[in-house]
Amino acid sequence: MCGGVGSRFWPFSRNDRPKQFLDFFGTGKSLLQLTVERISSVVRPENIILVTNRQYAEIIKEQLPEIKESNILLEPARRNTAPCICWAAHHIHALDPEASIVTLPSDHLVLKEKEFEKAIREGLEFVENGNRLLTLGINPTGPNTGYGYIQQGTAVESYPGIRKVKSFTEKPDLEMANVFIASGEFFWNSGIFLWSADSILKAFDKYDPETAHLFSSAEPNTFGTPEEPAFIDNIFPNAPSISIDYAIMEKADNVFVKTVDLGWSDLGTWNALYEASPRNHEGNVTQNCKVLTSECTGSMFAVSGDKIIVAAGLKDYIVADNGNALLIYPIADEQKIRQIVNEVKTRFGEEYV
Amino acid sequence: MCGGVGSRFWPFSRNDRPKQFLDFFGTGKSLLQLTVERISSVVRPENIILVTNRQYAEIIKEQLPEIKESNILLEPARRNTAPCICWAAHHIHALDPEASIVTLPSDHLVLKEKEFEKAIREGLEFVENGNRLLTLGINPTGPNTGYGYIQQGTAVESYPGIRKVKSFTEKPDLEMANVFIASGEFFWNSGIFLWSADSILKAFDKYDPETAHLFSSAEPNTFGTPEEPAFIDNIFPNAPSISIDYAIMEKADNVFVKTVDLGWSDLGTWNALYEASPRNHEGNVTQNCKVLTSECTGSMFAVSGDKIIVAAGLKDYIVADNGNALLIYPIADEQKIRQIVNEVKTRFGEEYV
Repeated sequence: MCGGVGSRFWPFSRNDRPKQFLDFFGTGKSLLQLTVERISSVVRPENIILVTNRQYAEIIKEQLPEIKESNILLEPARRNTAPCICWAAHHIHALDPEASIVTLPSDHLVLKEKEFEKAIREGLEFVENGNRLLTLGINPTGPNTGYGYIQQGTAVESYPGIRKVKSFTEKPDLEMANVFIASGEFFWNSGIFLWSADSILKAFDKYDPETAHLFSSAEPNTFGTPEEPAFIDNIFPNAPSISIDYAIMEKADNVFVKTVDLGWSDLGTWNALYEASPRNHEGNVTQNCKVLTSECTGSMFAVSGDKIIVAAGLKDYIVADNGNALLIYPIADEQKIRQIVNEVKTRFGEEYV
Repeated sequence: MCGGVGSRFWPFSRNDRPKQFLDFFGTGKSLLQLTVERISSVVRPENIILVTNRQYAEIIKEQLPEIKESNILLEPARRNTAPCICWAAHHIHALDPEASIVTLPSDHLVLKEKEFEKAIREGLEFVENGNRLLTLGINPTGPNTGYGYIQQGTAVESYPGIRKVKSFTEKPDLEMANVFIASGEFFWNSGIFLWSADSILKAFDKYDPETAHLFSSAEPNTFGTPEEPAFIDNIFPNAPSISIDYAIMEKADNVFVKTVDLGWSDLGTWNALYEASPRNHEGNVTQNCKVLTSECTGSMFAVSGDKIIVAAGLKDYIVADNGNALLIYPIADEQKIRQIVNEVKTRFGEEYV
């Protein structure tokens, strides 16, 4: 899944180049490229299907020339993850009714690649042996209020590390998050899902019939054929905008969680990126740019291109300079960035967001 | 005079485009262009002589296409103001031995153009009637330690507002500056001088014979002829690097001051520019750029090109973004900027300064 538009990393993420296409760590690879590389140890390139918004077709071809064009599914409208996943499941099911699917966000950080590969292999084995929906749960490192939480239930025999899910919870407040952590029963929802094409399509039929019916209205021999894009253009805009969590995972009774330690972050905010990045002795993240600081601490400096930043006296700030916009903002106020981006758009125009 | 290199406005001023060539106020005109416009009400364009460093020849032609090339004197080396003024005086004297000269820095701010014109006309009348060196003295608005001070002496009969100079003082410390202000006898040295070509050349002979002899070593018919540039290239590098204040004004006994209220600033520092600029209700200077601030006060935002700045929580900061460098610095520490520029050059290279 690489069709999302994220405004929280503005001015780095832009409408025409959201987070998944950015090289945040100066490795020379975007988060999307890193995601494709990571899953390539388990899934052959010809079996990697990308679902994205039509507007990103070019940038994807540029970043992933090894993915053939017919593997890139172009959504004509933004409809959150459920319609995206339902389409991909139909497409894959048409190519191979026995297929299993690993559903991956393309804009997350995973530091432990071997753990990841192991978890995916074990997870696939689990979902190939029954009508089961599996999610990877992350061992929480603190009461983060930016993540959804999964409460684990009873263990599954002969699959160590996999348990039945008792409940899914949207982002909690801090008090609730503390209770979750203290209980030891809750894990972060990574948004990484495993299932067979057949299982997830059955789940759509049962828990999200609106979306299911829309895609099932296709004539035979539509998915995986040249008829597919025209059909999608026709029906996709009518799909409800709904997340897979809300449409399926919170409702289904065949949901399981595999708890993993992946060195994972959803990189959902500047602060998450800061936490995931190496810091210097003053607690500043200055990776990937030339910075001269004096009495700056706990701050994050990000700049595009060959540019230097000279700064003094900043405590816990984000300094992000990219193209025609510069952000100098307290990290603690980062949740205001979405709203700021809207204000920037209104006051100064589309070209700045 | 437009050959200076100022690092204090980095990253706006650069080695290849110092302060006088910058449009600080978003008027569409550089400080040099504004200076030439200002004096054009008194001096015809064909009588405006520019002295600059050779490296700025192109930028001057670009900014002042109306000035003919033979009026642009190109110094082959940096030698402060005394050699610059001595050369110009010889050049002008050769063209017209009766000429009077208004010597102007090209990187200052003058808000009251009519007062300026009046002061120049009255000053010229004064220096045309005797062997007199006249400087314009600015009524100080506070104990600024960034300016030189002029102590006035006895009044000159029939020239109201003009007095003999009792002393010139280099930049004082704050205690001394307070004493100066309290006395009511001291004025800021504007660096604007008026004299006849003959008077200033006489003064060089008497008070700075080293410089005087160097330029007097020319064969007859050198200045104002095609021989001049080759002669200058030959001798100029041997000139002492010395300011006109130190070489002449502090020593001569025929120095007078005309006190004026010009709405003047030498724009010597970011803070001086801040003080000279209109502020919004939060005390921020955001002229000439698109800025969205929240809880920022007393700060100065300067950005080149069509770029926006979003900032929060900055108190008394300079944010200056230009080309390949971004400065975020407390205004109170602006005296460190010179040193920073050196550090930037050492650590990151010439291309950033």
